[in-house]
Amino acid sequence: MSSKAVLIVCDGMGDRPVRGKTPLQIAETQNMDSISKEGINGLMDPISPGIVPGSDTSHLSLLGYDPHQYYRGRGPFEALGAGMELERGDVAFRANFATVDDNMNIIDRRAGRFGHEELAKVLNMNIEGVDILVRHTVEHRCALVFRGKGLSDKISDVDPHEEGKIRKCIPLDNSEEAKRTAEIMNKYIGMCHDILRDHPLNEGRKLPANIILPRGAGMYKDVERRFRFRSACIAGAALYKGVAKFVGMDVLDVEGTTGRFDTNLISKKRAALKALEKYDFVFIHVKGTDNVSHDGDLEKKIEMISRIDRELMDGFVDLDSYVIITADHSTPVSIRRHSSDPVPIAIKGEGVRIDDVSSFDELSAVRGGLGRIRGIDLMPIIADFMGYYEMYGV
Amino acid sequence: MSSKAVLIVCDGMGDRPVRGKTPLQIAETQNMDSISKEGINGLMDPISPGIVPGSDTSHLSLLGYDPHQYYRGRGPFEALGAGMELERGDVAFRANFATVDDNMNIIDRRAGRFGHEELAKVLNMNIEGVDILVRHTVEHRCALVFRGKGLSDKISDVDPHEEGKIRKCIPLDNSEEAKRTAEIMNKYIGMCHDILRDHPLNEGRKLPANIILPRGAGMYKDVERRFRFRSACIAGAALYKGVAKFVGMDVLDVEGTTGRFDTNLISKKRAALKALEKYDFVFIHVKGTDNVSHDGDLEKKIEMISRIDRELMDGFVDLDSYVIITADHSTPVSIRRHSSDPVPIAIKGEGVRIDDVSSFDELSAVRGGLGRIRGIDLMPIIADFMGYYEMYGV
Repeated sequence: MSSKAVLIVCDGMGDRPVRGKTPLQIAETQNMDSISKEGINGLMDPISPGIVPGSDTSHLSLLGYDPHQYYRGRGPFEALGAGMELERGDVAFRANFATVDDNMNIIDRRAGRFGHEELAKVLNMNIEGVDILVRHTVEHRCALVFRGKGLSDKISDVDPHEEGKIRKCIPLDNSEEAKRTAEIMNKYIGMCHDILRDHPLNEGRKLPANIILPRGAGMYKDVERRFRFRSACIAGAALYKGVAKFVGMDVLDVEGTTGRFDTNLISKKRAALKALEKYDFVFIHVKGTDNVSHDGDLEKKIEMISRIDRELMDGFVDLDSYVIITADHSTPVSIRRHSSDPVPIAIKGEGVRIDDVSSFDELSAVRGGLGRIRGIDLMPIIADFMGYYEMYGV
Repeated sequence: MSSKAVLIVCDGMGDRPVRGKTPLQIAETQNMDSISKEGINGLMDPISPGIVPGSDTSHLSLLGYDPHQYYRGRGPFEALGAGMELERGDVAFRANFATVDDNMNIIDRRAGRFGHEELAKVLNMNIEGVDILVRHTVEHRCALVFRGKGLSDKISDVDPHEEGKIRKCIPLDNSEEAKRTAEIMNKYIGMCHDILRDHPLNEGRKLPANIILPRGAGMYKDVERRFRFRSACIAGAALYKGVAKFVGMDVLDVEGTTGRFDTNLISKKRAALKALEKYDFVFIHVKGTDNVSHDGDLEKKIEMISRIDRELMDGFVDLDSYVIITADHSTPVSIRRHSSDPVPIAIKGEGVRIDDVSSFDELSAVRGGLGRIRGIDLMPIIADFMGYYEMYGV
């Protein structure tokens, strides 16, 4: 007999106390608290204590794949999240459309947040046997893939990550592959500028999208699926869709998911409840909590958490499946960046050891029945509850 | 923005209950309790649960360097702690001056606790291309270094660790290097005896320092620094200075620090507060708690802990930096040896999640917001609080 499960990950929801209380302690969270009360609680280090997780490494870990083994840079996740299909050996990047002057000085790293499918399309080409594929996603963002033999992801970013001159791509190790990939990249960037400079869509623009700035090179390697059940992902932002696809989940298109504060949580909830008819495991990602944390906006964070509780979590408190609520890392509003502070986790469902914790927050959690666990432990725990376990030994 | 931190490690302070209470529970610890109350608490396994830490491996771990990767025997730490400079490939030892009779039977492993700089100096020599360097430290103790090509630390101790005949040094693996190093050691020990036997400083002594007994061979390998902030160490005993130097910390000379029960804690406190003007991170080591534990002296342990609280900790309770108090391992007075019982840890400072724990002791700690962590996790946690973090992924 096996059961189903819903994993809800609120990005950057963990925090530190501000005037004595964390946002989770302040927000209206009766539904999350009900999961805590009827479930088992703990603290979770997405990677390990003291290590500050990126969103990519953290999600790999939370979905059951050790980033130390599987993480090869962000590029592949962005490309997969943009809907591109990848092949083993592809080197993928995330990239921005940007505006440069004639001396390759960056005027705007985001080309006034402008980008276009047509601008991406004209950048597809083949250089020295390497197929180069570009896909526009939202605003100024796109994903870029190099496909061919003898490539390497050990190359530097073209994107300088700040205004200034664009960077020449250089090899980061002594291999022939890195040298060649960097050379092709530099050739390619020059050609992009030549093509985009005179493109009709840029005509008359104050901040024309006249170059792309790739970063986060990563070589794609397909992953052997670890879990045998059918899994689906509901997320707004490309990265999370990409990680989910990378580990073999189906990525569902859900209307109104934006990966921002304004995402439609009710739409996500409905899609998840519907997906549970077909899938055994549904992963819901909510990005808004992280965005407002990076802005240092305590009020908005409290509001977002309260809204998640009211508009999303209410659909799962009485669900006859396992319900897991957690965050992928803390993003304290006081420091406006990811931190290593562990996140609370609560698991509700048939047979879990119900502990005394009745509030879903960073301080109550550690007194729960799970103690302090790591992100990589989460999926095996869920899989075992669901009945899809693997025994080690006999 | 970054902050500073003080880490106070009381050696062997952790214990087991004696008639229902641990020394930490009995002692007067209002200042430690105040750190607990205003901070976050937890239990820490210096290495991992059930593993009994040595002071060397434990400190490596607590300072952020995995001993499984960096530990190569105690010798290098003793040599560094004695103020010697080491080069990659050096094999270092700790050694005692000792008294032997003409048949090389040991009369006193510590030569009546006598040793002398001049006696060390005459033992410097070169044998078969290997430079041999000796440095006297305190009483009968010295550090010894073999420097040259083709050496190995896979050799046995000359010190038998008890009265009896001195041991012949033998290679511990099949390598040519180990064979050669052992041969040179045996030659060297014979020559030491010849030189020391007739040395004027030994004249008329009942227990002449007429030999040295090396032990704890370890090959030195320089370590890449893990943390970017400026760090200083305040310690009395050579080992801890050595570990600190090994990992790239500045070792401060502080008057009155003895590495014993009688150390001047007020002097340590003042030195640490002053060091914080120049350094970002100050590590204070107190040895006395361990010494009295090895003696099985409960009263003295309680007295030492109370004194640490009164004379040292009072300087840090209101400090505007992170303050961390812990131990490097437990040394229960009931068993007079190190044990694997985890130690309490409390961290106070800006933004920490203040938990309900208000007493700094082994039983209260585990209910705190840190749960149970490992020694190797400590420095990344502190570094993240300080603002010197590295993100894994993006």
